[in-house]
Amino acid sequence: MTFITLLSDYGSTSEFVGVMHGVIARGCPHARVIDISHGIPRHAVEIAARVLARSLAFMPAGIHVTVVDPEVGARGVAVALRVEAEDRVLVGPDNGLLMPAAERLGGVVQALDISRSPWRLERAGAPFYGRDVFAPVAARLAAGAPLEETGTPLDPGGLRRLELSRAHRDRDGNLLARVVEVDRFGNVALDAGAHDIGQIGCTFGQHVLLTVRDHPHRVVLGHGFADARPGELLLYEDASGMLALAVTGGNAKTVLGVRLGEPVTLAP
Amino acid sequence: MTFITLLSDYGSTSEFVGVMHGVIARGCPHARVIDISHGIPRHAVEIAARVLARSLAFMPAGIHVTVVDPEVGARGVAVALRVEAEDRVLVGPDNGLLMPAAERLGGVVQALDISRSPWRLERAGAPFYGRDVFAPVAARLAAGAPLEETGTPLDPGGLRRLELSRAHRDRDGNLLARVVEVDRFGNVALDAGAHDIGQIGCTFGQHVLLTVRDHPHRVVLGHGFADARPGELLLYEDASGMLALAVTGGNAKTVLGVRLGEPVTLAP
Amino acid sequence: MTFITLLSDYGSTSEFVGVMHGVIARGCPHARVIDISHGIPRHAVEIAARVLARSLAFMPAGIHVTVVDPEVGARGVAVALRVEAEDRVLVGPDNGLLMPAAERLGGVVQALDISRSPWRLERAGAPFYGRDVFAPVAARLAAGAPLEETGTPLDPGGLRRLELSRAHRDRDGNLLARVVEVDRFGNVALDAGAHDIGQIGCTFGQHVLLTVRDHPHRVVLGHGFADARPGELLLYEDASGMLALAVTGGNAKTVLGVRLGEPVTLAP
Repeated sequence: MTFITLLSDYGSTSEFVGVMHGVIARGCPHARVIDISHGIPRHAVEIAARVLARSLAFMPAGIHVTVVDPEVGARGVAVALRVEAEDRVLVGPDNGLLMPAAERLGGVVQALDISRSPWRLERAGAPFYGRDVFAPVAARLAAGAPLEETGTPLDPGGLRRLELSRAHRDRDGNLLARVVEVDRFGNVALDAGAHDIGQIGCTFGQHVLLTVRDHPHRVVLGHGFADARPGELLLYEDASGMLALAVTGGNAKTVLGVRLGEPVTLAP
Repeated sequence: MTFITLLSDYGSTSEFVGVMHGVIARGCPHARVIDISHGIPRHAVEIAARVLARSLAFMPAGIHVTVVDPEVGARGVAVALRVEAEDRVLVGPDNGLLMPAAERLGGVVQALDISRSPWRLERAGAPFYGRDVFAPVAARLAAGAPLEETGTPLDPGGLRRLELSRAHRDRDGNLLARVVEVDRFGNVALDAGAHDIGQIGCTFGQHVLLTVRDHPHRVVLGHGFADARPGELLLYEDASGMLALAVTGGNAKTVLGVRLGEPVTLAP
Repeated sequence: MTFITLLSDYGSTSEFVGVMHGVIARGCPHARVIDISHGIPRHAVEIAARVLARSLAFMPAGIHVTVVDPEVGARGVAVALRVEAEDRVLVGPDNGLLMPAAERLGGVVQALDISRSPWRLERAGAPFYGRDVFAPVAARLAAGAPLEETGTPLDPGGLRRLELSRAHRDRDGNLLARVVEVDRFGNVALDAGAHDIGQIGCTFGQHVLLTVRDHPHRVVLGHGFADARPGELLLYEDASGMLALAVTGGNAKTVLGVRLGEPVTLAP
């Protein structure tokens, strides 16, 4: 049983995802495909990197394909990366999005440029990476072909890196965090974990002072929606282990007026 | 071949569904997963209960997982239920949503509290039920583990119940129904069937008087869109066997100004 | 390994797609289902026909089911079609949408009316074609049943046809094209290919004059987003090999004010 996972910003209205499934089924009929998500916001390389890094621990070993912004971000360089820790191969653009996941898995031990892989589908015009490069390469790897035959060797040290931001203490000793994801309910995820908030002396069950563009907000630090009153701002550890802001029965993004990437400050 | 079905309010933009597929694949690589739907409106326990109850007849026997509002509704109690009629196990929160389906299948013959199942994924903080409890338990059951080992026995009589509303005749002899679902086209499903409308003397092909908040509307009782003129209100039996209101080329919800849960009256 | 592909306008919020998967799994547990897309705009038969025709080359051979507007468009006639070129069977409504795909595959060599197939699910009221006819018929075919037993023979010459528009030169020698698809980013696909634009003397890397309702627009003819400046209109060959209009970081549909089906003119 060989698994291939897919992660992309293709959305759910086009046939792009279905066509990747088709190309994989033609190349390796017994491969099993798991769609991690196709709801990454368009071209959001950093969000895709976070989702991939936190999702792989829940996925069976296999070939892990990610397609976000391959043309602009990668300038046409597509890669396949073998990592140290488990029998996993990461496939995607060389725009850094694979690197946080690779680092969690012990780092890249072998890298290939697959942009002109012999297994790609050739057609006139610019390649459509997901369909023409990533899917057929993933299928052949799933069918047992050796990684070396996928493309041409690359120095792992030359791969593009992507530093994901992480909350840190500012000079006043408060926690300076960034908005890194907003979901469809308006819940706002930060680049901070329960450990970070503990380090500045905040305790679950108590209140925290959140400052957004000089506006202070009183927020309950709780374990779930049951810990806040309706309409009250809640700071909780979400499913990915990071802190997120929510409003029971409301929309934290709208209440706070925050945007992706914006800095916020947390204090006891 | 063992099937696991999934039904949730997770939507299609996050990785929550993909992560459940991953956890299942790790726990039982040969299990086959069918996504009934992940488009249940957020926390809409009653809609989920209706969808589950009417969908199972079309699903192969297996492990049927539903995740809607597990935290608030169930106060942390997750259950696995064996039913009388077929070789099916229902897995989900103990907030009543599994019960209408269980009743259609002859009732619950064995119930276990799986909140602290030995098969759950343990992590710091509050569990994320779909990923940490329901998916690994379903995978182990699909792999052949006995239901008894899933958790601790519960008295089926102590399970939370959920009464789904059903249209009935009011004191004037008319049919008093409720709006129970609204789809993305604005079609409005009622808690009444063709049998109910027949009982008050309405005939297919004729008109019915629909009253919404004291406003009367003339509605064609038809078999499909072909029975109504463009713009005309149509009452028809939908795919689930219940009556629904629609407007050809329009939006019945907007035309009628109705909301989920609202009562309407039908008369000849 | 037998594959069944599904294409529909069911969207992602209802359980309609999941129920088709369930019916297929009951009828042929080992069949593998690929969802080409369920995001076809509602009742958009012509778009479905284009998507099916261009997608099948990427799909493994199998049973290819399409459900768009079966009731209104087909007046209740559902068909299964064997094509000349590969071991593929097309299943869907007789409203023409299967025909462009069938023609690319050498034409229809055998046609059956499956509206009253012995394999359909019978229920009171109007059939719900995807669930009650197409899914069970596809499952039985995937399980190896002969096509002849699916229904009653039809003369392939009597099938409804659907002519897909194709850009052509107008009397001034310019290219007269139509808007045939608009995606969620506002990219606007035309019924013209790179060959057509070459024939009127346009060259990649240069500008083209686009006229929409007498309003002229200067457009870069490029290979991808890198060829246009932010905000500039770009005409490029999309993944399906057709020409599409886009605006880097913007929405071409809004900028141009075009609608589905609208004619536009291209000149050097």
